[in-house]
Amino acid sequence: MIPEATIRRLSIYLRCLRHSLEEGEEIVLSSEIAKRCGISSSLVRKDLSYFGEFGIKGRGYRTGELISAIEKIIGIHDKIGIIIIGAGNLGRALIRHLNEIPYFHIIAAFDKNQEKCGISIDGVEVFHISQLSEITKKTRPEVAVLAIPPDSLQETLDWLAAHGIKGILSFALSSVKTPKNVELGFVEIAAEIEYLLYKINRRRGTTK
Amino acid sequence: MIPEATIRRLSIYLRCLRHSLEEGEEIVLSSEIAKRCGISSSLVRKDLSYFGEFGIKGRGYRTGELISAIEKIIGIHDKIGIIIIGAGNLGRALIRHLNEIPYFHIIAAFDKNQEKCGISIDGVEVFHISQLSEITKKTRPEVAVLAIPPDSLQETLDWLAAHGIKGILSFALSSVKTPKNVELGFVEIAAEIEYLLYKINRRRGTTK
Repeated sequence: MIPEATIRRLSIYLRCLRHSLEEGEEIVLSSEIAKRCGISSSLVRKDLSYFGEFGIKGRGYRTGELISAIEKIIGIHDKIGIIIIGAGNLGRALIRHLNEIPYFHIIAAFDKNQEKCGISIDGVEVFHISQLSEITKKTRPEVAVLAIPPDSLQETLDWLAAHGIKGILSFALSSVKTPKNVELGFVEIAAEIEYLLYKINRRRGTTK
Repeated sequence: MIPEATIRRLSIYLRCLRHSLEEGEEIVLSSEIAKRCGISSSLVRKDLSYFGEFGIKGRGYRTGELISAIEKIIGIHDKIGIIIIGAGNLGRALIRHLNEIPYFHIIAAFDKNQEKCGISIDGVEVFHISQLSEITKKTRPEVAVLAIPPDSLQETLDWLAAHGIKGILSFALSSVKTPKNVELGFVEIAAEIEYLLYKINRRRGTTK
């Protein structure tokens, strides 16, 4: 079993490795990956060791091969279909942000407010939520990102699961039952701030 | 040393425990916390055991006491001062989202675009970035949340550090040097989606 934290760091390594490749570095040392990602060299080596032998002994890793291997582990492929539920400020910010990832394909956004529908945000059309069935049948998105308030979360999850969505990321942390066959993730911004507070607090404690 | 994952889960427990208290549950069992948070009972007990003895043997935890204890561990206090850098879609969404947390006090937002300044978003005023010095001196924010593109990240970090900000949360993952005396956190939405892809992929692999 590969630790969750390792898998999460793979995404970070991937970003750093792509930068390395863009800059012409065809071979990278773990110390260089570490520096770019702000992670210790020994942790980089440990993380990558879970996935077999990518390295050239004493000479580092072949950047392109390491990228392909990490992409294969994560399951990254061309045009990962994503839909955004909710076209408020957060939904709009998400469309612009995720549109920058070359292998993400933002298929469409959906909102229940008719006034927000029919417009296009960064090239992504906003549809009324009643059209979700029809559009998912045609486009088969893999992931839905929820930019909606927490009160209708369970209902939305069940409904997306019934439409064959396999992965759902929510910005509203709420006590819900994850539907069968769905992977559910939360991005809890308040919890991230609280984690910073804990670290500030601990630092104060140790420097007293 | 308490594991990072445990500290992160404390924020989740806190939210669930507040709901319990609102619903009049003055004593909670670990199994109830577990159910509310979607975390296993044994993990809840293990996490809470790091912080000493909160429980009433065989009868659960006193909800109010557990909340206070977790708040103390994290360093939550009334009116945690937060500033938002960037008043685009993401900045606006963050203001609305974080304004809902009763102990967060969103002091102000800042933008370099004069056209976005002078307005008020959900009761939070947007100032020109040139006023940051003056306003932080007066209000002493603890945390800055960065809703800005990655290209000016290092410069912004150094500048906020020089203004005494102790915690910074960024939505743009970038290879930067964390300033001394600053705790830096990243919310990487693309990485969260990739983690879902990995889990979908693994599930497919095991059900073949």
